[in-house]
Amino acid sequence: MKLLYPTSVKLDVPSLQGFAVSLHPYDVKSTIPEEHVDAEILITWSNSAENLKDAAQRLKNVKWIQSLAAGPNDVLSAGFDSSKTLVTTGVGLHDYPVAEHTMGLLLNAARHFYEMRDYQLQSKWPGHLGGSFPRSDFTTLRGARVLIWGYGSIAKTLTPCLNALGAQVKGIARSQGVRNGVEVYAEDKLPELLPETDALVMILPGSDSTVNVLNAERLELLPKHAWVVNVGRGVSIDEDALADALEKGEIAGAALDVFKQEPLPESSRLWKTPNLIISPHAAGGRPQGCEALITENLRRFLAGQELRNIV
Amino acid sequence: MKLLYPTSVKLDVPSLQGFAVSLHPYDVKSTIPEEHVDAEILITWSNSAENLKDAAQRLKNVKWIQSLAAGPNDVLSAGFDSSKTLVTTGVGLHDYPVAEHTMGLLLNAARHFYEMRDYQLQSKWPGHLGGSFPRSDFTTLRGARVLIWGYGSIAKTLTPCLNALGAQVKGIARSQGVRNGVEVYAEDKLPELLPETDALVMILPGSDSTVNVLNAERLELLPKHAWVVNVGRGVSIDEDALADALEKGEIAGAALDVFKQEPLPESSRLWKTPNLIISPHAAGGRPQGCEALITENLRRFLAGQELRNIV
Repeated sequence: MKLLYPTSVKLDVPSLQGFAVSLHPYDVKSTIPEEHVDAEILITWSNSAENLKDAAQRLKNVKWIQSLAAGPNDVLSAGFDSSKTLVTTGVGLHDYPVAEHTMGLLLNAARHFYEMRDYQLQSKWPGHLGGSFPRSDFTTLRGARVLIWGYGSIAKTLTPCLNALGAQVKGIARSQGVRNGVEVYAEDKLPELLPETDALVMILPGSDSTVNVLNAERLELLPKHAWVVNVGRGVSIDEDALADALEKGEIAGAALDVFKQEPLPESSRLWKTPNLIISPHAAGGRPQGCEALITENLRRFLAGQELRNIV
Repeated sequence: MKLLYPTSVKLDVPSLQGFAVSLHPYDVKSTIPEEHVDAEILITWSNSAENLKDAAQRLKNVKWIQSLAAGPNDVLSAGFDSSKTLVTTGVGLHDYPVAEHTMGLLLNAARHFYEMRDYQLQSKWPGHLGGSFPRSDFTTLRGARVLIWGYGSIAKTLTPCLNALGAQVKGIARSQGVRNGVEVYAEDKLPELLPETDALVMILPGSDSTVNVLNAERLELLPKHAWVVNVGRGVSIDEDALADALEKGEIAGAALDVFKQEPLPESSRLWKTPNLIISPHAAGGRPQGCEALITENLRRFLAGQELRNIV
């Protein structure tokens, strides 16, 4: 049996050995060489659309595709025969990187490092960004009320980091309940929760049901000192409504890692919107623990058992 | 008995009531009004040098000065009669704010938010700052080896935050031993520890013995990918040696909140040194828990017991 692994992420290949499977590297930005079209297992990571589309046509024997991305959209839209090919995702491999980036964005919001940078570029000392902020601002995570909209595995990793700095965390998810000690509500509670939020962290997936869920009406419910952080998908925010709210000072700021169009076009008004921090979809992109997921699923695949992270 | 409290920090004054002590606000940037020169207790916070020097001359009855700053330097140098006046500090009130700022600086180092800002100002998408950094760089706190030089109360608050993001923490202090589960070494171990450090966090006080302790020789011991973060006092770093190391690429970056001269003069080479993040002594300056310290020390003072945080 033949497995193709991507060279786009540095894998510890020896740790994948010991199965009755031959391991072969491949370039995710080119088409797969003729000698490897008989592969039955394909691991994907940041493959080009062309590579995947071509693979869907030529890899007639492929039975299982393990994506290392959190979502399967690129694989699903490539045209693989879903009746013959199992797809599993890398959900969970990005929990730490995304949680860490989120902490960075929240601290940039609270401590105004972006504004310090603007002063540094002019060789000017921004003494006013020191300690004596008014208490009505969002200037610290200590005691801050952080609402995580999209309370899944990333949120579960993020919560202890927020707690360590003294934040009070609540969540929003499809189903309500207490998860890892955090009170998680359904979306119908948003009208009550948003007015009591200092920082709204959005970690929603991209889907028809998440388009523009943060709209003008909901932005209005946030306090004036509130920040919005988005590390989920760009579709979930009405970007013009957000820019309007920032320009009018209806909320204090926003730190976005994801956008409706990426790369964000040079003509976008978001670049110059006040108190908007733009991060280039950089939160994830560093899967961690790939080898453990691949080997566990490889064992299960060879044993004919159900795989983890099936789409 | 009369107590003067500063208006430079918003205190919850009602929570200070209930003692046989009258409470009076005062302006720390002016001289103290004639009607209050009989005060026996003075709380200080960001007082001007003139205010303190004048108070040392005119407040003949002052028996106890509670500074809310971590260090007593401003009070001690004002000329109060140390044989009649007890001085206590606000050490501990700054642990959370400084720890939080340090986390922010470390995440700016790992995630290059400062560089993203430079691109944003040009409406440009810095796609290269996304996930695929080489592993030899310091791009995450997860698994990073963080050495805290000056392992005191701030470091003890910082450590759980670092641990929550997966960092491995060691400390340097005057006396070695295990503190809160962290291995703390004496300075003589630096030649062994520095080469195994991804991020060096300096939280040293300003004193004769800490001048230029991070010098060219010690900077050379750090790996090329290492970052230096200073939230202690500016004197502890040889700033020219640091700028040289950054310009030559001998270390990866530095994030400084404190400087030998503050505000940093416009002519300083540090403004333009590559991969140097300048923060305007903004880590602390937001004392937390003032009322609890003041009331505890007030009880002890009135009972004739030993105060906390005596200099």
